[in-house]
This record gives sequence, structure tokens and C-alpha cells, in this order.
Amino acid sequence: MATVNPNLKKLAQAYLFKEIDRKVREFSERNPGIEVIRLTTADTSQPIPQIAGLGIMHGGLKLTHPYTYAGYGDDQGDIRLREALAARYRLRALRIDPSWIFISNGAKEDLAAIQYIFGPNDVVAVQDPVYTVYVESNVAAGRTGDFKNGRYEGIVYMPCIPENGFFPRIPDQEVDLIYVCNPNNPTGAVATREQLKAVVEYAIRHGAIIIYDAAYAKFISSSLELPRSIYEIDGAITCAIEINSFSKEAGFTGVRLGWTIIPDSIVSKNSATGELKQMWKRRLAFASNAVSRPIQEGGIYLLSDEGQRNCEKVIDYYMANARILRAALETRGLTVYGGIDAPYLWVETPKGMTSWQFFDVLLQTAHVAGIPGVGFGPSGEGFMRLHAFEHRDVTEKAADGIRNDLRF
Amino acid sequence: MATVNPNLKKLAQAYLFKEIDRKVREFSERNPGIEVIRLTTADTSQPIPQIAGLGIMHGGLKLTHPYTYAGYGDDQGDIRLREALAARYRLRALRIDPSWIFISNGAKEDLAAIQYIFGPNDVVAVQDPVYTVYVESNVAAGRTGDFKNGRYEGIVYMPCIPENGFFPRIPDQEVDLIYVCNPNNPTGAVATREQLKAVVEYAIRHGAIIIYDAAYAKFISSSLELPRSIYEIDGAITCAIEINSFSKEAGFTGVRLGWTIIPDSIVSKNSATGELKQMWKRRLAFASNAVSRPIQEGGIYLLSDEGQRNCEKVIDYYMANARILRAALETRGLTVYGGIDAPYLWVETPKGMTSWQFFDVLLQTAHVAGIPGVGFGPSGEGFMRLHAFEHRDVTEKAADGIRNDLRF
Repeated sequence: MATVNPNLKKLAQAYLFKEIDRKVREFSERNPGIEVIRLTTADTSQPIPQIAGLGIMHGGLKLTHPYTYAGYGDDQGDIRLREALAARYRLRALRIDPSWIFISNGAKEDLAAIQYIFGPNDVVAVQDPVYTVYVESNVAAGRTGDFKNGRYEGIVYMPCIPENGFFPRIPDQEVDLIYVCNPNNPTGAVATREQLKAVVEYAIRHGAIIIYDAAYAKFISSSLELPRSIYEIDGAITCAIEINSFSKEAGFTGVRLGWTIIPDSIVSKNSATGELKQMWKRRLAFASNAVSRPIQEGGIYLLSDEGQRNCEKVIDYYMANARILRAALETRGLTVYGGIDAPYLWVETPKGMTSWQFFDVLLQTAHVAGIPGVGFGPSGEGFMRLHAFEHRDVTEKAADGIRNDLRF
Repeated sequence: MATVNPNLKKLAQAYLFKEIDRKVREFSERNPGIEVIRLTTADTSQPIPQIAGLGIMHGGLKLTHPYTYAGYGDDQGDIRLREALAARYRLRALRIDPSWIFISNGAKEDLAAIQYIFGPNDVVAVQDPVYTVYVESNVAAGRTGDFKNGRYEGIVYMPCIPENGFFPRIPDQEVDLIYVCNPNNPTGAVATREQLKAVVEYAIRHGAIIIYDAAYAKFISSSLELPRSIYEIDGAITCAIEINSFSKEAGFTGVRLGWTIIPDSIVSKNSATGELKQMWKRRLAFASNAVSRPIQEGGIYLLSDEGQRNCEKVIDYYMANARILRAALETRGLTVYGGIDAPYLWVETPKGMTSWQFFDVLLQTAHVAGIPGVGFGPSGEGFMRLHAFEHRDVTEKAADGIRNDLRF
């Protein structure tokens, strides 16, 4: 008889968003006249650049005519798109070979799948709080035990708290795969060169691999010195896989386009030079048939000067939202992290409230819903995540609610 | 230290296409004036319906304007597309609930991923010869031993040969997951209602699950009685997952759009009713962010009457190619299977030649390259796969070569 994957059964139910929905619904039912503003799921609100839309349209149109029709694409992605990405890395003086770049259906897809090329007994370390995809993909792959006290047995949680500037201390125990999200979701923290250097040095010393999620890199603006890519750190090319996406920087959340970089020089314990990249390629060969042509065409147009300028304007728009929210929260004496080089605000709960207590207070008095920090991991307790991706008027309304009506 | 997944290392190198490429290249170098026609990878040659291109364009355009922009989509797929698919199944008197349908980036992607929701020790049975994705995804997932004598240890190969009408006998040993491709790639065979009924009855009796690949269902034309979906068989709704795609029926090979059906009523040994579907949903929740909006819009337009009529014309075009190839092969006294309800021809090698011997003969005398049947599994030895997806003039040139120049 067929059986269900017991590892999938270990996954804690998607309780967090259900509970948020339930609370918001109940509040709305009791208070029919009041509109609740949700700053929960970080969904983008601003259109994609017109030129990117033109690229998608052009890509779709080409498929309708015999002279321009093409079938299966390169599993690794359109070489024009990979070259355009490599050119963008060169703006930061980085030499990323197009042959190291794999075009994907988005960062989430590859962040969940990348663990697949590693051994079943490799020990996984994650920042805590953490983007849950890193954890859940490893749970489903069988690298963990059960969920107990907010943690999966077998995963090494590295607390990211105010005391360490929200960047993890090097773990005491030996770990093999280290997930790093920078700028960070959910804390909004951005890592310095020295912080990243420490992780890279650990990885080189211990033969660990860093899975580096750079999906918010374009939101870094406070200093040119802050690394935008893990490859700005010496040696990262031998120990780090970088995963990125156009979702947040270009509004591609519903378009689905990202990329993963696996340098030839990356090695693991039982692999020769270049073999790890070949393993990913081998996996793609049986598990996919490349990313949609019209979508990749959209990506190529997006990487034009015009497309990139347009993205910067949208990023500025979102970061102005972040400032508006931050100012309102600080007016009320709240301690706020993030929101400067990242589209997330990480708000410390006042008066020692739990995340859920503050959630209730924020919902009931300011009519704003955030995500309780504890939903991202045990070290998220005592915090609340808000995001800056809403329309300006919605963001301002949330800020007004916080400034004028929040009671705690 | 990080390690490479030892199961990925078990995968036999992608030797087949490399060897074909090498042989064609060497022939071309020695014979610079002669053009070799490749009927190897089954890539489509005919444009997508104009209206489908319009859908993609419309979907891309909508994302560029604030009034029509939308971010993340429903993980399970746009409900309009799922409802349009359900309506298409109703044309065959099938009641497929839209809530059972999951929109995908193509059949290959889901065929490789579906094994993920099943237990690590479930025993897998495949038709032999077989579409290699079924086998390789299970090898990489650790359900097999090493590759020896053309087979992976632990996989149950069910020979599909002329003597059994290219449909497998029920396995003697207990199996848990049964992959069935109908119409079949590579043999081009189509199963009768009785043949499918036998597999469904086995699955129900033994609690096995059928993974049913229906990617070529639209090519069935010889009889209205032949099942187009596994759900035309009584009881299949409790034991079969159907996976399908627009790739071949609509030229969507480079567009990437498919769907997977997991009925609520499907059960496994350790799952409650509906739980298997929930497991797939749970996996999607952490492993993906839905299929691209413009591409799904293209699918919705494709399912219009105009789109479906256009697809039928293209299918007729390809099946005329199949007749042309078949006629040429039969003129030369060769025994040909398939090519009637499927776009593949499965040619028996003459004079007891091996697949590779006949490959060389066909290449060197007729200047046509096929895929040696043995590349699809041990029971493919003594056959050659040709496909009907080329342009008419290319197909006719291949037929001329076979008719006039083939020497064996």
C-alpha cells in the first residue's frame, strides 16, 4: 500500500496565517464599520515596469508566429538573461560567470529545492527568526525530528536578537548548511562586511555551504559599503550559493522569475570542483523544462537601463512607506528595527507583551494587523513584523492609526 | 562538512543524448554537404494559438497598470483556469472538481515532484520502456539502489512489448506507486478501457496509487471509446493522480503550463480521505508561489473555443506527419507501432539489429537520427523512437530519406 511521506506529516500546520485571519475576521464581524489594514503577507502593490510588461508581451507574441516560435528552452535559462545578470553584478565589481547562473521560477522555489543536492544527514543551521521555507523544506526532506517547543529537533537555530545586532553568532556545534538571509526577512537587519566575513570564514574552515538569500539586496541604500552579494566577501565563491529574485525589487511576485548562482569553484566533502553545480544541473534535467520563455523575455527587458531605473523608483516608494511607518511607531515610543535597508520593520513589543498580545492590541486599537514575530521562530517572541509594500494611502492610514489610536 | 546527495550521484550520466549528439556530429564532420534530420527530442515546431499569445500579452499588460496589477497568486492556480479545465473534462462526462486541480509549470515538473508526497520505502513500478523522469526522480529521492544492467535496483520494471500490446501485465510482486503513461511515450501505444481497468482494479485491491501521465491524451483520435483520462475508469477517483500539460497539445513546450489532479477521495495506507491532496497543497505552500500570472492567463485564453479549435488543427498537422513517416517506414518493410493515437512511432529494428545498430544505419544511409529504444529502458532494445513534431517539409525530407536511401 502506498504511504504518505512521514516527513511531510511532521510539518506543523500552517497555523500562523489561519490564526491571524481568524482574529481579523472576528474583529471585523464585531466592528462592521472599521477597516482593518493588513501588513501581514509581504505582497507587492506597485506595477511592474512597463518595459518588463513589454518584454512579456513580446515573448508571448513571438510564440504565435512560425518565424519566431521556439519550443523547449535551455534548462539553465536564456543565455541573454544570464549575461544581463552577470553584467549587473559587474556594476559591483563582481565577476559572476553566466555559466554559474541558473534562472528559476523565483527565489522561494529554489530556496526550497536547493537542499535536495545535499546529503540527507547534513546538519542545517538557520537564523532565528527565519523565513520558514528554509526550515520546512528540510523538515519535508527528512533532516529533522519532530516539532517541539517551537523548534524542529535537529535544526540548529541561531538567535538573531538586538544584543547581537540581529546577526547570528557562529554556531558552537559543527553545521553543514547555513542559511543566511540578508537583508533579513523578518528582522529588516542588514549585515556588515565583517559579519558576513565571519560566516564565510567559518564555512571555509568547516567545509560548510552557505545558502545565501539575497532577495532584498536592492533595498540596501544607506551605504555603498554594505555588501549586496555574498560574493563581495573573499572566498565566498568556494562556499556560498546565492539565490535571488525579481519579486520584491521589480514587483514580480506574480510573474515568478529568479536566479541561483552556483560557482564552479564551490566544493563539498564528497564532490570534486564543479560537481555541486553539475548536481543542480542534473536535477534540473529531470525535474524541469526551463522557465517560461515570455517570462524570461520580461526579465531581459527588465534588466535594461529603463527597467532598472523604474525599479529604483518603486524601491524608493516602498522605503518611503517604511519611513512613514517607522516615524509613527517611534512617535509612540516604540523601539523599531529595520526599515532602513530592508522593506521590513521589526517592532519590539512594549511593556513586555508577547507577540500575540501586541498583535491583539495593534488590531483592536490601531486597526492594523502585523505578523507576530514568534511565528518566525522562538527568538521572534516579543516582536512584530510590519512591511512596507502597501499602497501609500493604505500605509498612511496604518500610520495614522498607530499615531492616533494605538493604546497599550 | 557539507556532502552531495548520494542518491543524485546514483543517476547514470545523461549518456543517451550525448552519444546521439556525438554520432551526429561525427557524421556531419565527415559528410559536410549532408543535412541530418533529427527526430530525437520531441520538441514542438508549430506556433501556439494566436489567442493563447493574446492571453499571455494581456496578462503581462495587466501587471503594468495599478488598476489591474496583482502580486502573489493562489498556490493552487487561478480559479478561472481550473474551472475552464473542469469544463473541458465535462465534455467527456467527467466531474472533476476545480478544488482537485493544481496548476503547474508543466507535466515534467509535477511528474518529478509528485513522488515527494509518498513514503521513502514505497515500491515504484514503471512501464519499460519509460519516460525517464519517473525513474530518475525516484532514484534521486532514494527509493532505489544502483544502476546495473540497464535497471535501477528496487524499481519494478513492467515490460511493454509487442506480445502484450505494449501495455504492462499486473506485477507479480506488491507495488505501491504505479506510473502509467497513456498514450505512451515512447511506444506510441494507446490503452484500451479494459487495460486501464485492470490497473485500476489492481490499485484498489492493493492500496496502490497510479501516477497517470496523460500529456498526449489529445492525440487520441481513432475511437471515441478510448479513455482520454484515467477518471473514465470506475474507481480511479480513489487511487489515481492524473498529470497533464499544454506542452504538446498547444505548443506550450516553452510556455510551461500544466495541471495535476488529486481527487479528495484518493487515499493511502496512512492517510485519511483528502489528506493526500492536503499534503500536495502543504508542499506547494513552502515550495512554490504559484505559476506565473501571464502564463495562466494564456492558459485561460487557450481553453476558449477558438483556442481549442486551433489546437486540434495543430494536432492534425502533427498526426499527418506521423502518417507520412509511417508510410515511408512501411514501404521499406519495417514494422511500425504507434503514430495513430500518439505522436510517436516505435519502429522495430530490422534483421535483429540492436537499437544502436539501427541508429547508425538510419543516420548513415537515410540521414535521419532517432532515439535508440534501449535508451528508454531494457525492453526498448530492438526499437527506435521517431516523433511527428517537426515541420512538414522536414518530416517529408526524413520520409524521402527513409523511402529512397535507407539501406539495411
